[in-house]
Amino acid sequence: MSKINPYFQQLDQSYIFSLIEEKVEQANHMKMPIINLGIGDVSLPLSPKIVEALCEATCEMGTKKGMRGYGPSQGYPFLREAIQKNEYADFKIDSSEIFISDGINSDAVNIQDLFEKDASIAIEEPTYPAYLQSCIIGGWKKKIHFLSLTEENQFQPTFPEQKVDWIYLCSPNNPTGVALNRKQLSSWVGWARKNGSIILYDNAYAAFITSSDVPKTIYEIEGAKEVAIEMRSFSKSAGFTGLRCSYMVIPKTLFGYCNREKISLHSLWQKRQAIKFNGLAYPIQKAAEATFSKEAKVELQKQIATYQKATSILREGLTKIDQTFFGGIDSPYIFWKIPPSFHSSWEFFDWILEECQIIAVPGIGFGKLGEGFLRLSGFTTPEIAVEVIKRVLKSVVEIL
Amino acid sequence: MSKINPYFQQLDQSYIFSLIEEKVEQANHMKMPIINLGIGDVSLPLSPKIVEALCEATCEMGTKKGMRGYGPSQGYPFLREAIQKNEYADFKIDSSEIFISDGINSDAVNIQDLFEKDASIAIEEPTYPAYLQSCIIGGWKKKIHFLSLTEENQFQPTFPEQKVDWIYLCSPNNPTGVALNRKQLSSWVGWARKNGSIILYDNAYAAFITSSDVPKTIYEIEGAKEVAIEMRSFSKSAGFTGLRCSYMVIPKTLFGYCNREKISLHSLWQKRQAIKFNGLAYPIQKAAEATFSKEAKVELQKQIATYQKATSILREGLTKIDQTFFGGIDSPYIFWKIPPSFHSSWEFFDWILEECQIIAVPGIGFGKLGEGFLRLSGFTTPEIAVEVIKRVLKSVVEIL
Repeated sequence: MSKINPYFQQLDQSYIFSLIEEKVEQANHMKMPIINLGIGDVSLPLSPKIVEALCEATCEMGTKKGMRGYGPSQGYPFLREAIQKNEYADFKIDSSEIFISDGINSDAVNIQDLFEKDASIAIEEPTYPAYLQSCIIGGWKKKIHFLSLTEENQFQPTFPEQKVDWIYLCSPNNPTGVALNRKQLSSWVGWARKNGSIILYDNAYAAFITSSDVPKTIYEIEGAKEVAIEMRSFSKSAGFTGLRCSYMVIPKTLFGYCNREKISLHSLWQKRQAIKFNGLAYPIQKAAEATFSKEAKVELQKQIATYQKATSILREGLTKIDQTFFGGIDSPYIFWKIPPSFHSSWEFFDWILEECQIIAVPGIGFGKLGEGFLRLSGFTTPEIAVEVIKRVLKSVVEIL
Repeated sequence: MSKINPYFQQLDQSYIFSLIEEKVEQANHMKMPIINLGIGDVSLPLSPKIVEALCEATCEMGTKKGMRGYGPSQGYPFLREAIQKNEYADFKIDSSEIFISDGINSDAVNIQDLFEKDASIAIEEPTYPAYLQSCIIGGWKKKIHFLSLTEENQFQPTFPEQKVDWIYLCSPNNPTGVALNRKQLSSWVGWARKNGSIILYDNAYAAFITSSDVPKTIYEIEGAKEVAIEMRSFSKSAGFTGLRCSYMVIPKTLFGYCNREKISLHSLWQKRQAIKFNGLAYPIQKAAEATFSKEAKVELQKQIATYQKATSILREGLTKIDQTFFGGIDSPYIFWKIPPSFHSSWEFFDWILEECQIIAVPGIGFGKLGEGFLRLSGFTTPEIAVEVIKRVLKSVVEIL
């Protein structure tokens, strides 16, 4: 009978977001409407300029002259050039080094096609689950080194104890909400250069960076172009989670080795995409291009400011009741340390769902080191954030 | 230094469509405008109902109430249900067995995540290149069995000489244009059942089937639900090559084995998608749903009829000058046997480009057994097809 990939059996059987859904369904006797600060999804509508561009491109495709079939697997030049001009003009990144795709999730897992089967991989813990789970499916479970993120190290990833081939770094971090500052990121670039590693830099939350000492892109760091691939997305910066558009920067100065031969990762990925990916929908790419227009930039800045306001209301509320938490400054995520009267993040999840009708994500869902924390998402409105704090204040008296 | 997947080096260095592009650029002295019957891409504009649905869904996302973030990784129920009702109601396929994605190309290569590393794979030759190239990248090169398609066997794939775990079958076939009839497909289902294989059935050109003895879906065949995954797309049936939407049917009655344990492929794929894929854009899924509306069906039937008319004009023209060719009845592709005065499909490609300013695809691009043929695509208008034949008739006198 057909032989099946055995590595699927190494996955944890429980998928965190399915578990949360079940819990929510079981939670009867709802006293008030549920507020979902769980999955890190945007909530504000698409901005008018984006809607307009998407519809215009679609109408164009309804005409004989404007019809577009297969697009380039790397993405249309108009979008790659807009990204280059708006995001990377200061960092000597060329538009030919930018690859368009349907999400960082896809890029972060598909890039594994470039790994050798006995390559070693470093992954932060706690972590966005897809990095780890996809590495497990791919058969790398025994080759994974975990980079501990703990309260003790202020959620700054520790260097691996030995050389590794690939390093997943997420900053501003999901789930902790903490970002690497210039000095910290420099030391990672330095470590990678010294040890011949490639950094896969997940920069999905770049738009939320407010601290002046946190780089907006890894290419701000000298020497990063020889060791780092950067992944960015329109999901969180422009509300594209339901439209799907992201990009990955693979500098031409980036090399790996195969049987001692130096191989350009850029050309390898180009080959991979030409074979495995038929490109992204033309109207979606036009919509992404529109995010760089003057009007859209203003609209989107307002959206980000709304989420930031909501996040800071959550922060202030938790501060008022002397809670310990991390993140929420350069990121819409707050990593809330569970009060001492609770024994696990699931227990606290249950309590806050039952008492406050608020959904969050128990830290254990991001790995063992996430235990003891609850992730709150600030992708909501200031009004709802106020309501969250009101509910928490009311119920929390019992437990503090 | 970072270790790179060595299997990329087993790929042919030349990518057929890049080579064609180079040739076209080199071909100076153009006497008339180039006609591109090369890449199998649609040419007619999106039909109005599709444009309307896409724009409507986009506008919906511009409102507070209608905004959609992450959708289900399996695809929205509304689309899965529409597909079930319109395509599979007679074949006991449930909407939960349908998975939405961004293209058959993606599904056909991503499904390899389910293969064991020492599983054996059967691939037709000539073949759509992505099946083979992705298997090579994945490290299966030595485990591939080729199923010969030749003039002698009328381009009907031969059974593998031994058991294989996975079989890529493409019908109506790309590049040959020949479809498996009911009896032939039944014998494949029977072979797979007897030998414990899974058939990956690429049915991208289902909309072009006209012969009454060619099944529109593999599930017409008794017993197929225990051995076959079917891949379908809106690309060729509704002009979605620039929008990207496809689907894959994985019946719940389909199992593979891992260490003697019976594993449901449906649940394995569901897991794979949840980890690696964040779903398809909501407006694209709404556009795909709209293809099933009464008006759209009429519009799309007209489009298909246009391509079919163009294809039959090509067929008739070639017949008139006593050319040997295959396909073009249940498929928009014609596999033209090169005239005896030419030594290779590239030579004939060069000649027809130079003399007639027509771009086609040399059969060698689809594998060694494709040598001696040229693929013509009928995705054009009847007027252009007439012009193609006119040019060929004019030039061909020299060589016949």
